[in-house]
Amino acid sequence: MTALENRHVLLARDGDTVRITMNRPDRRNALSAEHLGELLAAFRAAAATDATGIVLAAEGPVFCAGHDFADVAARDLLGVRELLTLCTELMTTIHAAPQVVIARVHALATAAGCQLVASCDLAVAAESAGFALPGGKGGWFCHTPAVPVARSVGRKRLMELALTGDPIDARTAAEWGLINRAVPDADLDAAVADLLARATRGSRASKALGKHTLYAQLDRPETDAYTVALEVMAAAAQLPGAREGMAAFLAKRPPVWTD
Amino acid sequence: MTALENRHVLLARDGDTVRITMNRPDRRNALSAEHLGELLAAFRAAAATDATGIVLAAEGPVFCAGHDFADVAARDLLGVRELLTLCTELMTTIHAAPQVVIARVHALATAAGCQLVASCDLAVAAESAGFALPGGKGGWFCHTPAVPVARSVGRKRLMELALTGDPIDARTAAEWGLINRAVPDADLDAAVADLLARATRGSRASKALGKHTLYAQLDRPETDAYTVALEVMAAAAQLPGAREGMAAFLAKRPPVWTD
Amino acid sequence: MTALENRHVLLARDGDTVRITMNRPDRRNALSAEHLGELLAAFRAAAATDATGIVLAAEGPVFCAGHDFADVAARDLLGVRELLTLCTELMTTIHAAPQVVIARVHALATAAGCQLVASCDLAVAAESAGFALPGGKGGWFCHTPAVPVARSVGRKRLMELALTGDPIDARTAAEWGLINRAVPDADLDAAVADLLARATRGSRASKALGKHTLYAQLDRPETDAYTVALEVMAAAAQLPGAREGMAAFLAKRPPVWTD
Repeated sequence: MTALENRHVLLARDGDTVRITMNRPDRRNALSAEHLGELLAAFRAAAATDATGIVLAAEGPVFCAGHDFADVAARDLLGVRELLTLCTELMTTIHAAPQVVIARVHALATAAGCQLVASCDLAVAAESAGFALPGGKGGWFCHTPAVPVARSVGRKRLMELALTGDPIDARTAAEWGLINRAVPDADLDAAVADLLARATRGSRASKALGKHTLYAQLDRPETDAYTVALEVMAAAAQLPGAREGMAAFLAKRPPVWTD
Repeated sequence: MTALENRHVLLARDGDTVRITMNRPDRRNALSAEHLGELLAAFRAAAATDATGIVLAAEGPVFCAGHDFADVAARDLLGVRELLTLCTELMTTIHAAPQVVIARVHALATAAGCQLVASCDLAVAAESAGFALPGGKGGWFCHTPAVPVARSVGRKRLMELALTGDPIDARTAAEWGLINRAVPDADLDAAVADLLARATRGSRASKALGKHTLYAQLDRPETDAYTVALEVMAAAAQLPGAREGMAAFLAKRPPVWTD
Repeated sequence: MTALENRHVLLARDGDTVRITMNRPDRRNALSAEHLGELLAAFRAAAATDATGIVLAAEGPVFCAGHDFADVAARDLLGVRELLTLCTELMTTIHAAPQVVIARVHALATAAGCQLVASCDLAVAAESAGFALPGGKGGWFCHTPAVPVARSVGRKRLMELALTGDPIDARTAAEWGLINRAVPDADLDAAVADLLARATRGSRASKALGKHTLYAQLDRPETDAYTVALEVMAAAAQLPGAREGMAAFLAKRPPVWTD
């Protein structure tokens, strides 16, 4: 894992997990171009390791407040385009990582911060956390944050989030499907560890291919989705993980994963 | 706002809100070609105002019973096609209006009446209201009403609504995401006003662009959705609303919206 | 109804309903090529009858355990492709059947067994049943089973099911929209019969066209969905079922369905 020369995004390896921590609490972990660049570098470094899981966490009173207005206000059209392209690249990189990526949300996640949570594969939040697309009550609508949020919650709920700009609490976010679960604040680390442990078992190669294929098929028409999934699944049956899994099952012995 | 020469669809301005009321209670506000035409004219008139919100309400024991069989039964293929094209145009016009459109559902909404509610940006219903796609238990299936309903509720729930034709109550509709909330009948107006007030804050131009972009990206593949949303968001950062919002935030003063 | 020469898939007619029962309890109703072929033949035979509903049930301690590893392990790439093509054809055949297809889930449904439930139009489960995509914790990811599951539950819930491989109980499956309802084990048959009876009323031809159109429009962009649904609905208004339904309604008499 490449050492990262900064203190605003911490990168730590703990067993099979890489923990990426946004550490710019005084700026509410706002996504300036610099912070986005550091996060992107951290995810790329983590993705290149042999870890099986990545935890995205944050320090300070806010999980992530979205774009940094001090950064955006100074930019012209092409400059903002560049910033949003970088931001979208971060979301795409999270989807493309072979590891399972889980958000550990201890506090408010707004705008592109809420988009970050929606873009992680899994998300667990403390009950005191909240989620909002505040552009709806301001002057700069949350157009891109609404993209992954729209793919997690129903249409009327998306409209309410995007048009009112008001936060929902973690329990509501879990009911709406924006996150996997809301837990008492004191249980947050245990709940993240439990879900991640269950989500990272089995053949690493099989899981990485699985995650990739899920995102490839998710919002295609069903016929197209089957075309993709069927080809991958047929090929995957020939890989060491599948061979070992089936052999172990048929021999009634525990599997040993080598890939 | 153009005066409308009829009493079957009432149009009233109240502050920043236009209220459109279906007022053909003896026909259960059924969507005859004439009633559809009046509703369409009302939405076009409301959309052309500087109001920020539109409330769709109804008078009588039924919110809206869908198409008027007396009207449909007399039509040949091209005639029904014309009627359904007019009906679809109404749904498209609601999506295209720059205002936030909220349905105030006080009673049963069935078939194209249920489609109307699903097509509004937001919806609040009295607990005694209900929702159904009754074509499923009759002879003329609710093909077009199922289009926006399918985009609000999950697949199994859509199938249950469409195949059984039976109504669900307002609380179930809220749980399934067909409406935003179900409230005690006596609280309906207050709940509509509260949600609409929260949904219409901020820059009007920013919100209109936001609503338009939400519908443009909603059911595209995620990559295409980002392509649309990113370009709009970059351009939007240069508009007066965004500039004012960011300047006010950075100067720690309340924003003043001019667009 | 063609007689089927096997005991592993039972086919029985009861009034307007055809009941298809997976009856290979010692193999946990695993979907070997042979079992898939028998199921496919059973669904084709049932679809060709004048029944209005099809119940998919199973015998034994497991509803269906998905693919049969003894069958898969012996196959090369083209062989697995052939098996998965057969499996996908079964799912497509369920969608294409003019009858309403309901899953009666009395026990655990995993992998392609969970896919089967997700592919039925409706599903009712006993409270002691469960649902899983176990490939996620093994060596062969549930790529194709995830296709219809992804179209029934939200994204974060899909990820949790697919990545952890852990089962959810029937009550959770109902909350997530994977099934229509979870009922006490003793009430399973009554609940299946009630939902199927309500889902099979009305004109048979109208319902068949309705089901077909729902699957045709479901995951298209809304504009495309309207294009499909509008043409079908206009044409459908000319059919005997629609004519009778409207005439009966206007004459205030009960309808008599002839199609």
